[in-house]
Amino acid sequence: MSGDVSDRDIAVFEAGIKLGALYHQFIGTPLSLKTIKVVENAITRSVSLQPYVKAVKVEINREKVRERTTRFGYCELCGDMLDVWLVVEYRGVEVRARLKFDGEYPLMFLESVSAAEP
Amino acid sequence: MSGDVSDRDIAVFEAGIKLGALYHQFIGTPLSLKTIKVVENAITRSVSLQPYVKAVKVEINREKVRERTTRFGYCELCGDMLDVWLVVEYRGVEVRARLKFDGEYPLMFLESVSAAEP
Amino acid sequence: MSGDVSDRDIAVFEAGIKLGALYHQFIGTPLSLKTIKVVENAITRSVSLQPYVKAVKVEINREKVRERTTRFGYCELCGDMLDVWLVVEYRGVEVRARLKFDGEYPLMFLESVSAAEP
Amino acid sequence: MSGDVSDRDIAVFEAGIKLGALYHQFIGTPLSLKTIKVVENAITRSVSLQPYVKAVKVEINREKVRERTTRFGYCELCGDMLDVWLVVEYRGVEVRARLKFDGEYPLMFLESVSAAEP
Repeated sequence: MSGDVSDRDIAVFEAGIKLGALYHQFIGTPLSLKTIKVVENAITRSVSLQPYVKAVKVEINREKVRERTTRFGYCELCGDMLDVWLVVEYRGVEVRARLKFDGEYPLMFLESVSAAEP
Repeated sequence: MSGDVSDRDIAVFEAGIKLGALYHQFIGTPLSLKTIKVVENAITRSVSLQPYVKAVKVEINREKVRERTTRFGYCELCGDMLDVWLVVEYRGVEVRARLKFDGEYPLMFLESVSAAEP
Repeated sequence: MSGDVSDRDIAVFEAGIKLGALYHQFIGTPLSLKTIKVVENAITRSVSLQPYVKAVKVEINREKVRERTTRFGYCELCGDMLDVWLVVEYRGVEVRARLKFDGEYPLMFLESVSAAEP
Repeated sequence: MSGDVSDRDIAVFEAGIKLGALYHQFIGTPLSLKTIKVVENAITRSVSLQPYVKAVKVEINREKVRERTTRFGYCELCGDMLDVWLVVEYRGVEVRARLKFDGEYPLMFLESVSAAEP
């Protein structure tokens, strides 16, 4: 069987790269309720620079930041605080992917893969 | 058009996650010729833990490490030093992916996507 | 000889922590001329959260970002792009520290350690 | 008052750099009971390369790794799993520093600063 790589494969692969990269780049960043927006914005803008990213939305869970704020007045960005919606488009294939805490684990998964709107 | 996600999509997505994660986790690690093997091994073993990874090989470019070693006797892991071969398998779909310096840029790309050997 | 730790020691130690942390947290972040300010701001705000930080200024070298921007329209944050001025104060001791590229290597060093203005 | 920087200041500053760097470089690394030794070793060897490091010992808490291992068979390196003993020596000044979980927070602190054994 041929192992040919399709445009759809590349679109999906690129979506995976972005989520894996985002997670391991920004986890550990010092964080407080006052800096959540600045950090969300920096992550969003950084991911948006990468190839084939059509849209990205990053939300950091306020409640978890509040709960984990230590006596020093801050905490650090953890994987289970992140909610990410990512849309990648490559040659007409649109991929929607998520990074989301599932109650036990920050999961990365595909929501849909389809031909983009013409 | 349906946006249904196939096993093939998931296999390819998982390969992308691993390469994006590896890159952004380990870039910046202090490095010398004497520690290359230890760092290669730690990266290999860490990636191998992640879901659906069938095989991974990590090579750090000795020549670049030698060239960039400073007067302090070490350098740091840069993206263009990394050569990675990754095989992911998900429900019978085997994905071969690479991270490789192309002369200008550390590129991540798919080599093949196919049904695994039965 | 006693190994007693002074307030001055702690002030200086805290400054070192901040620079080491900043460097290894943010190196590798995708970057372009358009996102420099957002990333500088996120780093500044994140460092400012940490204990005893009185002031911090982060500058990313525009010229290097311009030069290293690839055909994909971005590059990544490298150590030699960073210019950081940090002021830490602990119990009346003020420490001024820098992270600065010295032509070969991104160096972290102390500029001054002194009693803070009363 | 003069802001002159002493050898003792530099020794202590360098210790801080190493702990801040170590923490933010390796947090997030995929981890299981089987890879703890490999990761401990890679961290130890990487830190040992840096200037003025005389000794370093890194222990990752087995119990926490066991508890946090997910259904996927691994977890990730968190700050509260790390126990680090660091000895830095600069021009005859020996600094002993720790990274240690204090029950609420991974703390970095100085244990002693003194003239090295002659």
